[in-house]
Amino acid sequence: MMRFFATPRDAEVAFYEALEQIDIDAMMRIWAEDEEVICVHPQGGRSLGYTAVREAWQRAFAQGTRASVRITDVVRRQGILLATHSMHEHYAVAGEVVVGETLARPPVIATHVYVHGAQGWHLLARHASSAPAAAVDAASLH
Amino acid sequence: MMRFFATPRDAEVAFYEALEQIDIDAMMRIWAEDEEVICVHPQGGRSLGYTAVREAWQRAFAQGTRASVRITDVVRRQGILLATHSMHEHYAVAGEVVVGETLARPPVIATHVYVHGAQGWHLLARHASSAPAAAVDAASLH
Repeated sequence: MMRFFATPRDAEVAFYEALEQIDIDAMMRIWAEDEEVICVHPQGGRSLGYTAVREAWQRAFAQGTRASVRITDVVRRQGILLATHSMHEHYAVAGEVVVGETLARPPVIATHVYVHGAQGWHLLARHASSAPAAAVDAASLH
Repeated sequence: MMRFFATPRDAEVAFYEALEQIDIDAMMRIWAEDEEVICVHPQGGRSLGYTAVREAWQRAFAQGTRASVRITDVVRRQGILLATHSMHEHYAVAGEVVVGETLARPPVIATHVYVHGAQGWHLLARHASSAPAAAVDAASLH
């Protein structure tokens, strides 16, 4: 069921592909098949365990609009068994008007933790929350 | 400047002590002295780097009320160089009336990543966001 990923970056590329394609099966092949995987969606509670994480993605995908995601401000740290990535996710919904370089909405701040096992690297934890609008305004000045 | 912590748990105990005591120096001894430490406060943007993380805690402590913190639902994963903890933080402000077992407010969901170096274990990343009120209501039914 899990796909083999040689590096955390490979898993992350596949994660954002699955997210853009709102493909639940592709999404769940990125996660470790583990009782202790964790997913926190923006404005959401914490889902714990593979089954609960799958259900939370199903709910998100069921109500979600297909969007493209642009990743910026990536910070990575690689260990031997664990790796962590932090980034800003900028969502653009098809048909939305983007004026100049102004972002349509604040980014989502995401923290990912990947774990290394027999099947390569998989997502162990995702914590996502919306940045405040003020932070985006400040960032856009630089 | 950094305090030595033999385990991520030791660092975490000291983290919550510093948080309860709103002690900025004690707080910053828990963080890795690193250009890539990350802190996301609830409803806040991402602070990157030791100096920015210190400034964000100073702002939080300046406006913050002293509160006690109760930790529940802890999930830990230990690697060789990195470790990750996930938990719910329940804040209780002195003088607040808690009716029965009802929580005064939704918990904060926190993800911590610790890194191991010459000075032991230190906090590399903290991502904190408020759980929705609905999630707490649902959880209190179980």
